[in-house]
Amino acid sequence: MVDLPRVTDNGHLGPINSALVPRYGGAPTFALLPSIDEAVAAGHRPDIKVVGVPFDSGVSYRPGARFGPGHIRQSSRLLRPYNPATGTSPFAQAQVVDAGDLVVNPFNMDEAIASIQSDALELTADGASLMVLGGDHTIALPLLRAAAERAGSPVALLHFDAHLDTWDTYFGAAYTHGTPFRRAAEEGLLDTEALCHVGTRGPLYGKADLDDDTRFGFGIVTSADVYREGADAVAARLVERISGRPLYISVDIDVLDPAHAPGTGTPEAGGMTSRELLEILRGLRGLEVVGADVVEVSPAYDHAELTGIAAAHVAYDLIGLLGERA
Amino acid sequence: MVDLPRVTDNGHLGPINSALVPRYGGAPTFALLPSIDEAVAAGHRPDIKVVGVPFDSGVSYRPGARFGPGHIRQSSRLLRPYNPATGTSPFAQAQVVDAGDLVVNPFNMDEAIASIQSDALELTADGASLMVLGGDHTIALPLLRAAAERAGSPVALLHFDAHLDTWDTYFGAAYTHGTPFRRAAEEGLLDTEALCHVGTRGPLYGKADLDDDTRFGFGIVTSADVYREGADAVAARLVERISGRPLYISVDIDVLDPAHAPGTGTPEAGGMTSRELLEILRGLRGLEVVGADVVEVSPAYDHAELTGIAAAHVAYDLIGLLGERA
Amino acid sequence: MVDLPRVTDNGHLGPINSALVPRYGGAPTFALLPSIDEAVAAGHRPDIKVVGVPFDSGVSYRPGARFGPGHIRQSSRLLRPYNPATGTSPFAQAQVVDAGDLVVNPFNMDEAIASIQSDALELTADGASLMVLGGDHTIALPLLRAAAERAGSPVALLHFDAHLDTWDTYFGAAYTHGTPFRRAAEEGLLDTEALCHVGTRGPLYGKADLDDDTRFGFGIVTSADVYREGADAVAARLVERISGRPLYISVDIDVLDPAHAPGTGTPEAGGMTSRELLEILRGLRGLEVVGADVVEVSPAYDHAELTGIAAAHVAYDLIGLLGERA
Amino acid sequence: MVDLPRVTDNGHLGPINSALVPRYGGAPTFALLPSIDEAVAAGHRPDIKVVGVPFDSGVSYRPGARFGPGHIRQSSRLLRPYNPATGTSPFAQAQVVDAGDLVVNPFNMDEAIASIQSDALELTADGASLMVLGGDHTIALPLLRAAAERAGSPVALLHFDAHLDTWDTYFGAAYTHGTPFRRAAEEGLLDTEALCHVGTRGPLYGKADLDDDTRFGFGIVTSADVYREGADAVAARLVERISGRPLYISVDIDVLDPAHAPGTGTPEAGGMTSRELLEILRGLRGLEVVGADVVEVSPAYDHAELTGIAAAHVAYDLIGLLGERA
Amino acid sequence: MVDLPRVTDNGHLGPINSALVPRYGGAPTFALLPSIDEAVAAGHRPDIKVVGVPFDSGVSYRPGARFGPGHIRQSSRLLRPYNPATGTSPFAQAQVVDAGDLVVNPFNMDEAIASIQSDALELTADGASLMVLGGDHTIALPLLRAAAERAGSPVALLHFDAHLDTWDTYFGAAYTHGTPFRRAAEEGLLDTEALCHVGTRGPLYGKADLDDDTRFGFGIVTSADVYREGADAVAARLVERISGRPLYISVDIDVLDPAHAPGTGTPEAGGMTSRELLEILRGLRGLEVVGADVVEVSPAYDHAELTGIAAAHVAYDLIGLLGERA
Amino acid sequence: MVDLPRVTDNGHLGPINSALVPRYGGAPTFALLPSIDEAVAAGHRPDIKVVGVPFDSGVSYRPGARFGPGHIRQSSRLLRPYNPATGTSPFAQAQVVDAGDLVVNPFNMDEAIASIQSDALELTADGASLMVLGGDHTIALPLLRAAAERAGSPVALLHFDAHLDTWDTYFGAAYTHGTPFRRAAEEGLLDTEALCHVGTRGPLYGKADLDDDTRFGFGIVTSADVYREGADAVAARLVERISGRPLYISVDIDVLDPAHAPGTGTPEAGGMTSRELLEILRGLRGLEVVGADVVEVSPAYDHAELTGIAAAHVAYDLIGLLGERA
Repeated sequence: MVDLPRVTDNGHLGPINSALVPRYGGAPTFALLPSIDEAVAAGHRPDIKVVGVPFDSGVSYRPGARFGPGHIRQSSRLLRPYNPATGTSPFAQAQVVDAGDLVVNPFNMDEAIASIQSDALELTADGASLMVLGGDHTIALPLLRAAAERAGSPVALLHFDAHLDTWDTYFGAAYTHGTPFRRAAEEGLLDTEALCHVGTRGPLYGKADLDDDTRFGFGIVTSADVYREGADAVAARLVERISGRPLYISVDIDVLDPAHAPGTGTPEAGGMTSRELLEILRGLRGLEVVGADVVEVSPAYDHAELTGIAAAHVAYDLIGLLGERA
Repeated sequence: MVDLPRVTDNGHLGPINSALVPRYGGAPTFALLPSIDEAVAAGHRPDIKVVGVPFDSGVSYRPGARFGPGHIRQSSRLLRPYNPATGTSPFAQAQVVDAGDLVVNPFNMDEAIASIQSDALELTADGASLMVLGGDHTIALPLLRAAAERAGSPVALLHFDAHLDTWDTYFGAAYTHGTPFRRAAEEGLLDTEALCHVGTRGPLYGKADLDDDTRFGFGIVTSADVYREGADAVAARLVERISGRPLYISVDIDVLDPAHAPGTGTPEAGGMTSRELLEILRGLRGLEVVGADVVEVSPAYDHAELTGIAAAHVAYDLIGLLGERA
Repeated sequence: MVDLPRVTDNGHLGPINSALVPRYGGAPTFALLPSIDEAVAAGHRPDIKVVGVPFDSGVSYRPGARFGPGHIRQSSRLLRPYNPATGTSPFAQAQVVDAGDLVVNPFNMDEAIASIQSDALELTADGASLMVLGGDHTIALPLLRAAAERAGSPVALLHFDAHLDTWDTYFGAAYTHGTPFRRAAEEGLLDTEALCHVGTRGPLYGKADLDDDTRFGFGIVTSADVYREGADAVAARLVERISGRPLYISVDIDVLDPAHAPGTGTPEAGGMTSRELLEILRGLRGLEVVGADVVEVSPAYDHAELTGIAAAHVAYDLIGLLGERA
Repeated sequence: MVDLPRVTDNGHLGPINSALVPRYGGAPTFALLPSIDEAVAAGHRPDIKVVGVPFDSGVSYRPGARFGPGHIRQSSRLLRPYNPATGTSPFAQAQVVDAGDLVVNPFNMDEAIASIQSDALELTADGASLMVLGGDHTIALPLLRAAAERAGSPVALLHFDAHLDTWDTYFGAAYTHGTPFRRAAEEGLLDTEALCHVGTRGPLYGKADLDDDTRFGFGIVTSADVYREGADAVAARLVERISGRPLYISVDIDVLDPAHAPGTGTPEAGGMTSRELLEILRGLRGLEVVGADVVEVSPAYDHAELTGIAAAHVAYDLIGLLGERA
Repeated sequence: MVDLPRVTDNGHLGPINSALVPRYGGAPTFALLPSIDEAVAAGHRPDIKVVGVPFDSGVSYRPGARFGPGHIRQSSRLLRPYNPATGTSPFAQAQVVDAGDLVVNPFNMDEAIASIQSDALELTADGASLMVLGGDHTIALPLLRAAAERAGSPVALLHFDAHLDTWDTYFGAAYTHGTPFRRAAEEGLLDTEALCHVGTRGPLYGKADLDDDTRFGFGIVTSADVYREGADAVAARLVERISGRPLYISVDIDVLDPAHAPGTGTPEAGGMTSRELLEILRGLRGLEVVGADVVEVSPAYDHAELTGIAAAHVAYDLIGLLGERA
Repeated sequence: MVDLPRVTDNGHLGPINSALVPRYGGAPTFALLPSIDEAVAAGHRPDIKVVGVPFDSGVSYRPGARFGPGHIRQSSRLLRPYNPATGTSPFAQAQVVDAGDLVVNPFNMDEAIASIQSDALELTADGASLMVLGGDHTIALPLLRAAAERAGSPVALLHFDAHLDTWDTYFGAAYTHGTPFRRAAEEGLLDTEALCHVGTRGPLYGKADLDDDTRFGFGIVTSADVYREGADAVAARLVERISGRPLYISVDIDVLDPAHAPGTGTPEAGGMTSRELLEILRGLRGLEVVGADVVEVSPAYDHAELTGIAAAHVAYDLIGLLGERA
């Protein structure tokens, strides 16, 4: 309606200036960043596009992640432009915009996956990278397809999650939120030298789950490993494994303990704290991150935006990593 | 990001076509209507502007209505374009747009009231009328100032509320959510022949509250009156009292029983149902409504968008009334 | 700490003056009335004592009513001194005070019942009447014992409840929240010419439940009767049945529909609205009310003080009835 | 583990005897009725089978009804065996059992619909009728297919809902929770002389929605009609329209106002009260009810089992209607 | 209704096969294990019986643990059969069944304790061990009596709790949730060489509480000790103290921080994380565990099954420990 | 009403004796301590006054801290008199009383700040120190003015918070909850040699925020520092920096992770646990604490008193520190 005053830094159009405009008002773009339309109209070329994928037809338990993107945005209103933990300004090192939500068919899985893939390719055709707000974990498959195509090679994967998500089928369905990384491995999208789950815990269907997972090339840093080793040591291990390869980071918010992320679909006790997760991410600076998602935020189970805030902070730090390339 | 398909009807740009785009995705404009920017860019002149006023510094008890506009919008995603209760299409009889939120200073009441007033005048300079989403009831005063100025005369007022809101001062403050209609009366903004509270109930400070109120010219239809007489008879009474005058309608969501609107600041037992309120509003067709608000939605106290949904439906019917003039 | 300014009316010490002191601060006495100590110290003789009975060891399903008295008080902060529905000032027609909570043993039912009875007698030794905030419905038995003793005769009873509460035993226990009125009838505490349940609904164990109930002398106005006849006709019927006898009114908050009172232990669908209940109570003016309770508020199941507010308003109107004698 | 004492009445095995066993313990079968296995093992032939259909892949907005059957059962623990509103004992007039939940594939709509249909046929092969706990409204289609096949003719339909559910497609999908009755009409499952929606309200996509609906043969009693005419008159109208035909009753819990049923997926303001719904159902005695469902209970949005309790009471009265044939 | 496909491993009948049957449907037995009836009917002899004790009449603050067993079961639906943290399959190393809930009188403490004791003895007469889901902590006393009788000697005790639970009386009552271990010590049920509290914190009534506790033979590992020493060191200490003796493990869920277990009755800040608790339990392998409970889950205060999930995971690991003997 | 039995220790009047009186009943003074009136009437001179400041007009995001003091008190009912973590009895080493709530004008910031300052001076005129329950962080400024005046010198400050709160203005307002410590520094209230933030994290507006902060003399121990160094090392560092100077401790509850303190206004992920905070406070023994506050508890966003309990425990340990001087 009116032109809202924005922070500009390093030539980039940043968030609304919250010293002048209250943060609780106005349209809930991520971190109150400009929409892609506003940025482009003002002559800025987006480097990083925050995009929502409101889709949860792949879930096997509690649904609701279709409302995840809007909830994370609403929970991101307090994010400010300077990150003292890294000494960087994520919205200054790259032009970050909110590209809205994809239109995804909830009733047709094949169509949904195909459209996410083609939309992701279209959104990255200009060289921009994507920070995706899910949605359930099914969406990681088409996002990885797009990322690998853009990278021109299989990509390394850091997968923060309580679960392996390398299961095979569920009620005969090959494409669900429990299978994206098996499918991705089968499709040759992943750089099998540089794959790692972080934060896994909780019971599995059987030992074979682990054997399969290992066969695909995944390493595992469990939630208990993070407890014993600490975030810095874990980050160092991950950097060593991954360094020098195009990297996709996928964060299932259930990697956090249910205390830190109640608003999710398949919670498991014994998880990481949000501080551990953020500190690990901050330890990954220097890696070549080409795409990222944070998924499985189910607002109906959240309280006081607890989960949404954690996801928003994770996305903020992921944007910082993505922007190192810009 | 992509151009979303919209319903168009009677030459007006309407909501996103929800047969093609899921309602839970995308930006939460009111009823998924076009933003003012999108409509204007597409060559449409707005007749009715839905605008949020995220302000709650005037509340005397539970705060939080600053988050009201966003919450009502989020709760309005299910609104569809045809109203079978009236046989009309509110978004076809007039061009309705979402004009976003005003920028209001939470720390300076005088500045806040002044800026709301000037913004309201600016938004109506093109002849459009406003459907305001509050915010606390303090905002009715500057909105009435603007409405009276645009009408060129004092305006009639239908005031749906549990409370009279014609109190004088509170801790010495003249401008609070309990005083807008006393101030408006004192300022000569109200047509003293055509004022009515509807839905009041609950204890007062003293009998003098009623005496003052009568002196300002208000009639009262209590919540118990609605129970005894029914919505149709009440609506008929109101039409008779008001007919033929420019009318402002102000709906404090606490006019509903706390069962129907828990998410508000000063709830009183014994209130109206949402059905009664909607049926009364539908009985007001033919009145010359020049402005309207729905206020005092405090999301932190809401559950499952119960209050937000009620407010969204109220706003939808108010838009139908506003649009009869278009 | 400081002497808070209070409303005084008709010589009585009333609530804190909320034009000077915000209602959300200070100690949560009922309606912000003076404590018994403060009133007595200021030379006022209490006519009506609001007293809590934090006890729920008699419940057969959801517990938690032990927190009821505090919750109702917290939910009563918005009550103001003048009741326009009756044209009376409940805190002016009698000196009303908050007498705090009884000390009741949760682990020994016999001791609990005995102490409630003796405390009730002690509190009424000065001629005051009691407005009791429960607690589960078990407490009605000792309260009726005390009321009958003070009345010097069996008392009439109006019992607002979803349930009859005239069952016999539960797991062999004679004294539970489902049995107080059978016990009271057996003990000769009730005036068998003037007993009525109002608002009952929901399934029973068998037809014999009704037969027993009739045998004790109870009439029944079901929730459906209230729907069909309306509050005024029901009130008139009750007045006719009861008039001229000392009357005890016991309100189980589950008489309200779960929409209006989710915070209770044994909710039944199809209940009354808070408006119906309040309007019936207002139709009882002129009856000789000697004691009253509102029970079964279980805050852990409440939302946004919905149930607490309903109970507080009920107690407010009951105080108005009790005060007619003062 | 131990044989729990059960009420037996009229030769039928009824609920656990809650005078001996607390209602909050033990397995949550509907109304604490025997499981089908327990009843059959004890030599009882089921007349009415309560069966859950945990499926919500057909929803267009808030998901979660997959958890509905378990939630309704948990909320049904307080149901007792005698219904004073009708003077009948639903569990004595017929042998009612809990048949558990169907196994339904969440990822394959065609398979889901087919398996619900075949399971329904199998469950009714012995002449029993079904009381179905949903699940989303998609399931009404296969249930109507089975009901029509068992009836040997199209069936009459009473459809309690805020919505028409006769829409055509949604994102190209023919089978969703918004389309079951259009599909059923197209498939010739419905007796076009005897179809009625009750409780509809809220906006539609367009006037054509109503025209289509009328063309299929539906009558409409809106929520506002219920308000104006009262439950008894509405029930009489329905009986007149339906009488003498095999009747299927489908209750979408969103027919209730969000105040009475927040725990649902597409809530609309202005709805019926649970009392109105129950009184209408009680007015339908004498109709030949051959099957029934209560659907769209989404527990993640419920509070204090409010919605679950309403649904449980609805199912209880529907069982009473179903049992009149037994 | 239908025979559900189950995982079988090592000759034992395991959970429902969730690759074929969605986890959100069907009866909520613990971890979707077979009921005792189903297992026995299929020819399996139970080694470990999961049994609920829905009882909370011993609580001194927030009640509601009577609903604990059902809530933990509902929260256990996601548990899978292989525990990668220990490399074991708890449901394969022993036949684990769900034995339902005990019938316990809420109104008579003596009868309640006696019946829990005799039921526990009866359930273990076949050599099975019990994994008990509470209920409040009062139940540990009769469970210890049964465990000591079955062990033929006093038993070692590991007690995870925020509180000591060795207080003496409360309002004159000897048997409450604050006293079971004092009573057990007095009755000679405990092996005074091998007793330890883990996770205690928060204020006490006085220093004498600690002196008494020490006199009974208890060691204490506080929550702060766990923070300083880490789970592995604590587990090693416990193993050293306990090793070689029949051991009972009692877990009050309030040993977790309120962030991890809000759904409990007497929460204390500064508690353990669920990860710490699970890692300590995993460090206890090799101990001779003869019985276990997890108590004090009060669902009305839980959110999104946070507490229930933590309790379910704790029970899962305890079953792993119990099964080492099988 | 009746004289409640109280614990007395070391000549001081302590909390109600909860072995005789259930903790859930009675007036919710902090920790069930005597009110100032009761203590003084019984001849005790208060050393430490717990006082609430129900004020939140300075907040920039989620409001509601005006209800904080009452909520913390309600959440403090379980606090017992002996602190085993420190081996001290906070209510025995000093006479601690509950002095109720200040009366603060919500509509006039200047008047509010002035009255808090003058009330604080009046309350400490007898040499007592204050344990303040907020309220938003704005109140720290007048409290520091009073503390510095009473100390006769600038005071050292330990500030536990997610945020620096040394920002300058917000919408032109100099006095908000984001600015108290800048104002305090400018006014010379702070001992610039001994200032430290603890627990900060989350994004800032820019690097200049840190530069300004450093210029005022603040050191920073971030939440990540606490994670890496541990509570004991942090406490030791703080003691070294502060020792020997009059010290004010201000705890914004948002220093805790949102998992531990959802009920606050500007939550940031990655925070401290309540155990870390309490252990740091316990490491500060021996410092000369002259005043303390715990602020920003916003109950509408709390769950199950999680945040209130954390704040109550923090206040309890702060009282222990304050009492070392008594």
